[in-house]
Amino acid sequence: MESNMIFVPMALAILGLLFMFVKMAWVKKQAPGDERMQSISKSIKEGALAFLVAEYRLLLVFVGIAAIALGVISMLVDTTHWIIIIAFVIGAFFSALAGNVGMRIATEANARTAEAAKTSLPNALKVSFGGGTVMGLGVAGLAVLGLSLLFFIFVKMFITGNASFYTEMTIALEALAGFSLGAESIALFARVGGGIYTKAADVGADLVGKVEAGIPEDDPRNPATIADNVGDNVGDVAGMGADLFGSYVATVLAAMVLGNYVIKDMSAAAPFTDAFNNMGPILLPLVIAGVGVLASIIGTFLVKISSNDAKEAQVQKALDTGNWAAIVLTAIASWFLIRWMLPMTMEMNFFGVEEAVVVPSRHVFYAAMIGLAVGALISMVTAYYTSLGKKPVLDIVQNSSTGAATNIIAGLAVGMKSTFLSVILFAAAIYGSYTLAGFYGVALAASAMMATTAMQLAIDAFGPIADNAGGVAEMSELEPHVRERTDILDSVGNTTAAVGKGFAIASAALTALALFAAYVTFTGIDGINIFKADVLAMLFVGGMIPVIFSALAMQSVGKAAMEMVKEVRRQFKEIPGIMEGTGTPEYAKCVDISTQAALREMIVPGLITIITPVIIGLVFGAEPLGGYMAGVCVSGVMWAIFQNNAGGAWDNAKKSFEAGVEIDGKMEYKGSDAHKAAVTGDTVGDPFKDTSGPSMNILIKLTCLVGLVIAPILGNHGAETDTGVATETTRVEASSEVIKKVSVDMEVDEQEGVAKAEVVTYVYQNENGIPEVNEKVIAGSLAEVEARLNALKADAVTFQLKKNGAFVNEEG
Amino acid sequence: MESNMIFVPMALAILGLLFMFVKMAWVKKQAPGDERMQSISKSIKEGALAFLVAEYRLLLVFVGIAAIALGVISMLVDTTHWIIIIAFVIGAFFSALAGNVGMRIATEANARTAEAAKTSLPNALKVSFGGGTVMGLGVAGLAVLGLSLLFFIFVKMFITGNASFYTEMTIALEALAGFSLGAESIALFARVGGGIYTKAADVGADLVGKVEAGIPEDDPRNPATIADNVGDNVGDVAGMGADLFGSYVATVLAAMVLGNYVIKDMSAAAPFTDAFNNMGPILLPLVIAGVGVLASIIGTFLVKISSNDAKEAQVQKALDTGNWAAIVLTAIASWFLIRWMLPMTMEMNFFGVEEAVVVPSRHVFYAAMIGLAVGALISMVTAYYTSLGKKPVLDIVQNSSTGAATNIIAGLAVGMKSTFLSVILFAAAIYGSYTLAGFYGVALAASAMMATTAMQLAIDAFGPIADNAGGVAEMSELEPHVRERTDILDSVGNTTAAVGKGFAIASAALTALALFAAYVTFTGIDGINIFKADVLAMLFVGGMIPVIFSALAMQSVGKAAMEMVKEVRRQFKEIPGIMEGTGTPEYAKCVDISTQAALREMIVPGLITIITPVIIGLVFGAEPLGGYMAGVCVSGVMWAIFQNNAGGAWDNAKKSFEAGVEIDGKMEYKGSDAHKAAVTGDTVGDPFKDTSGPSMNILIKLTCLVGLVIAPILGNHGAETDTGVATETTRVEASSEVIKKVSVDMEVDEQEGVAKAEVVTYVYQNENGIPEVNEKVIAGSLAEVEARLNALKADAVTFQLKKNGAFVNEEG
Repeated sequence: MESNMIFVPMALAILGLLFMFVKMAWVKKQAPGDERMQSISKSIKEGALAFLVAEYRLLLVFVGIAAIALGVISMLVDTTHWIIIIAFVIGAFFSALAGNVGMRIATEANARTAEAAKTSLPNALKVSFGGGTVMGLGVAGLAVLGLSLLFFIFVKMFITGNASFYTEMTIALEALAGFSLGAESIALFARVGGGIYTKAADVGADLVGKVEAGIPEDDPRNPATIADNVGDNVGDVAGMGADLFGSYVATVLAAMVLGNYVIKDMSAAAPFTDAFNNMGPILLPLVIAGVGVLASIIGTFLVKISSNDAKEAQVQKALDTGNWAAIVLTAIASWFLIRWMLPMTMEMNFFGVEEAVVVPSRHVFYAAMIGLAVGALISMVTAYYTSLGKKPVLDIVQNSSTGAATNIIAGLAVGMKSTFLSVILFAAAIYGSYTLAGFYGVALAASAMMATTAMQLAIDAFGPIADNAGGVAEMSELEPHVRERTDILDSVGNTTAAVGKGFAIASAALTALALFAAYVTFTGIDGINIFKADVLAMLFVGGMIPVIFSALAMQSVGKAAMEMVKEVRRQFKEIPGIMEGTGTPEYAKCVDISTQAALREMIVPGLITIITPVIIGLVFGAEPLGGYMAGVCVSGVMWAIFQNNAGGAWDNAKKSFEAGVEIDGKMEYKGSDAHKAAVTGDTVGDPFKDTSGPSMNILIKLTCLVGLVIAPILGNHGAETDTGVATETTRVEASSEVIKKVSVDMEVDEQEGVAKAEVVTYVYQNENGIPEVNEKVIAGSLAEVEARLNALKADAVTFQLKKNGAFVNEEG
Repeated sequence: MESNMIFVPMALAILGLLFMFVKMAWVKKQAPGDERMQSISKSIKEGALAFLVAEYRLLLVFVGIAAIALGVISMLVDTTHWIIIIAFVIGAFFSALAGNVGMRIATEANARTAEAAKTSLPNALKVSFGGGTVMGLGVAGLAVLGLSLLFFIFVKMFITGNASFYTEMTIALEALAGFSLGAESIALFARVGGGIYTKAADVGADLVGKVEAGIPEDDPRNPATIADNVGDNVGDVAGMGADLFGSYVATVLAAMVLGNYVIKDMSAAAPFTDAFNNMGPILLPLVIAGVGVLASIIGTFLVKISSNDAKEAQVQKALDTGNWAAIVLTAIASWFLIRWMLPMTMEMNFFGVEEAVVVPSRHVFYAAMIGLAVGALISMVTAYYTSLGKKPVLDIVQNSSTGAATNIIAGLAVGMKSTFLSVILFAAAIYGSYTLAGFYGVALAASAMMATTAMQLAIDAFGPIADNAGGVAEMSELEPHVRERTDILDSVGNTTAAVGKGFAIASAALTALALFAAYVTFTGIDGINIFKADVLAMLFVGGMIPVIFSALAMQSVGKAAMEMVKEVRRQFKEIPGIMEGTGTPEYAKCVDISTQAALREMIVPGLITIITPVIIGLVFGAEPLGGYMAGVCVSGVMWAIFQNNAGGAWDNAKKSFEAGVEIDGKMEYKGSDAHKAAVTGDTVGDPFKDTSGPSMNILIKLTCLVGLVIAPILGNHGAETDTGVATETTRVEASSEVIKKVSVDMEVDEQEGVAKAEVVTYVYQNENGIPEVNEKVIAGSLAEVEARLNALKADAVTFQLKKNGAFVNEEG
């Protein structure tokens, strides 16, 4: 069993995918409704797929270019194998596939949910949540399957025993990083593109339809209404799915990389061995992810209601029950898995602590529990700041009475204030899980949080399906009670969407942190010291990127919405009988506008995200890039929380008017001046919460992933003391048959009595011929530098000295 | 001459103050206008002074508490002398005095400007700019006088030659930090309180007056109109003055601290000597500041126009001429001062570079020029993003046609995008000036930028005076051409205000950075490594503080404005004949509401700013506090630029409608729907640009200053290697007669063969009995720890070993 452990996550992933097919078949078997409903549903599906196809065409170009860039990296760096290209393409393909499957089922499930709602609310929930489950399991199943399959192959390829386990495993994990990079790249475009799409359609439809023409939401006379419903799928289903797919993969990858470091730390005296092919700490996060899929499947069975008269609270409770069941099951399983798969105690090197620290395996479990707890708490904080009836939303409602300006100010303030508790919790999670088990603990905390992604995503994806079902009901002019039932589901969906965003940013932040830690260890630099001016400067530059990214995303929505407005106005004017319901609007034109705008506008922010870290790394080196990454993370987390929560709070402040609110002792309803002010706030909040806010997740993760992938190129640029060499030597001596070659380029200022030497250490490993290169600069008095060089000489097999660029042959 | 160099800045400061008195007398001699104008001017003055008095009463409590806290610090830490309390109180007093003088003259100058505008625009400029000059010279003169006087005294007190120059100078500069802390504390309350005051009055007056009652700005029937005009003085004159006073002092202080480190670096072989009492590098920033006062005086003579028909462009040109003259003169003077006062070459230790780097003094000049250039460029970027007729403002105007929501989104996007160039420039300034001359270069860049503060502030303060003059003209129902003339001045004032904010944030950021560098060197920690989990966690916490601070400030404005709205509504309803102009509004009640609200609301953000770094420093230690400081700076700079520029752009987008704008081929004017949307944007932008945005400057500076003042308590908490001791020993051996005592508390785990020792090193300096304490932790194998302790023993005069808490007497 133990030595075949890699098959466990693989099997669980396949189980998840099988269950997904069962659910998918079940959903498709449900009654699809009357002809009109089917036709609307078909339009939405076609619109959504048209967007995906157009997106894929663009992504194909991107994937091609990125593959070439990775090919260049793999040629330059010998620890990066060309197979990373394959991994990258598979990652991109799996991510796109997961989004595609989820969106297909979501667009199938909408009309079926509406049809089910005709007779039964429990059935409507079952259908819509069934659709969500397909999405959740598709994402989680493909993620775990892809990771474990590729890892299995790479282990076979690279773990040959010719070099040290650590070195070979690093090559394997570096290749696996390609899978994560592929997944996250697709997520970037899906999130940003989807976010622009959905809000352009939404804002455009609302501005002309609701405000100018005075027709209700989802009215079939509105030409943008199909585009609006497509947008829900493109943004909230495919975008969110790709986002979590990316987080999930990146978290597990980072934990595996840090697991490899645990093994390295423990191999100081003798090579680490365990029953799991000596790779228990690396396999653990994968297995936990696999178990999370199983726990999620069990959880989905608990999501049901029995009464046709159920209200939001009961539906919410059903979802909560399923969610918590999955979490608790995962937590219990983690306890046993950690005890089983990790050594009782591990010796870890903590940064800045001279001696290795002995960490009992239960500390890793506690760290994982911190991850679960903080994930839940941040979700609760998010819920508090964005829920109907809670103080923050009520504040915004009260401030709507004096107009749009005060509503906006209040909403901005709510979003800003919500950063307080979220960041404190997040900081506590870093501090706590690190103290318990180092950066491996931080990564495990993130992994535990992400383990029930399947369930989390099922809950997230059910919302837009219910929302769409309401749209179908409205457009097909079904009886009011159908819309009422779908509205109950939709309303719960709005809350879960807000909470899901809290979860997404918490997990993205922890993931980024784990990647950051993996980056530092990959490059072998001596930490990230912001007291160095270049590092500090890049910290500021990094802090600016999320702000610019948000601005670009928001502006894109504005531009695209404006085009939509013009098109809708044109149709209202030019198509005869459109307002009387006798003329048919040209839905496809609006779908097309959103599609083109989304594709066009996602290019610049996408490129900024990917290219900036590459430039900074190549120009300034590894440590400034670390500063940049930290800047992006710190600023990105603030702007994500701020934008998501402000947007969510504005949305619900507007919704509060539907039931009526009391302001200064007077009841105010929809249509009042205060409500109009609240609508303005909601419109501002739309791009915040659905475009720029959620994009921050991808931005911070992708920044760190790009850093991780190019880390081997940057090498030890940052190392300026000779500690690096000492470590290098030790590591190499443990492996067999090496030729060590040291070449030195020395500048001597004899007048001043000082010297500076640039030392390049090659370590040839005969079997596979991979040279490891280690560069550093020694500066000091002539005597000092010479003493150090002599120490190096004694250690080297061949030695060359350059003076002023020319070799002075001095073979040792 | 050279050895009395300290008298040069003192004399120049006194010269500046004398010139200030001359200008003040001249302004007061101008015709004050008719009785009505005088009475309005008097009301504004009384309101402003009433606020100041109420503010002082509150500040007295704060200063008292802070003085006690400083007393405690000075008792705990022997490098902190109790005299820091006196310095703190003087700093607070000088800052308040400067604000008071400026506000008095501003409230005198407003009616006189209006009176002058009756006959001559050139004279109106002369009077209003004269008022601004008084403010500028008051601030700069008092700042330089205070710094140089106290420094003179502290040098006499502490530089005795008993200990090393560096150690004694550190004590002197630590005391001088008290002056800066006092100044910055007052600035905090003046900026935040003033910002809340002015916007509460402004928003309140506009919402009821302009929007509900439909009466124009500054209409005497509006009860809040006096409060509004008082607010201009309280916020834009006193607040801005205190802000720049604080920046000015902090910059010079940081440069002096870093100058002391230059001297330390150069004393490695033999004590540093020069003609300036061996303190050229420390005196240099003070002297440059003094010369800047002189250059500013000269510059003010160039600010004049000749034609009565001059337009904005001519007025702007006159101000620019004066400004650039002052800058160029300061630059030229700096070249000679740097050549004269610094050694031809300096050996500086660059962080992370093993050997000292030889820096020619001209590099320091180049660094200063970078400061001047970046200050000017960031001002230009600010002007671009906020000026009438430029693309960003035009974008907002275009987006106003589809309503308030799109206007808001466009404005937010402009603010966010404006961070790009500003941050790139700022990062380049850090990188460039550091590369040239280390952190001393960074501090000198900031000093050079701040040197012409007097001129800068004269230009800034002239705006609100002109604005007030317009208000007086309106309220006194003077002929329209008077208002037209003051409007020209006011319009230029709006541009200079926006540019001034760019300058203020650029200087604050560089100042904070210089303070940050001083902090790291003060604590003696080995840099700030964000790869340590606690440091990283605090980086996130720091990043959150500016966001929370902004939220609190904005909310305070909202709350206070709401109170104002209710009061104005009440007066409109209850005072008979108020709208017909027969009843007199109760202006004083509105003034009172603003005053009370501002005082109440500034307490929480003020305390957060001051207390958080103290708690973090004491609980987590010096390095995490460094992470916190960096987080506050990075996030604070982004939020400052974002809020200032978004607010400025919204303001001018609204103003664009006054002349009419073309949207979709149609001209839109004041009163159109698009204009109403623009008014909403402006209202949102008001607290952004006048309350929360400018508060960020103070937040980041004060955070770093508090860190600097408590730095000695934190000691070497962060040092975990024994490099700290080695340095310590070297330093002490250079001075005479020391007793060194080492006490060790050791924990030995004999089973595991590891030991951990906490080492406290006392270094008694006989003459003045100041012990220097150095703590560190040595952990490792038994043998390793013992070897290190033996090295310490050999070095110590007395040595005590504790095991498990009990002393094992082992006197060495």
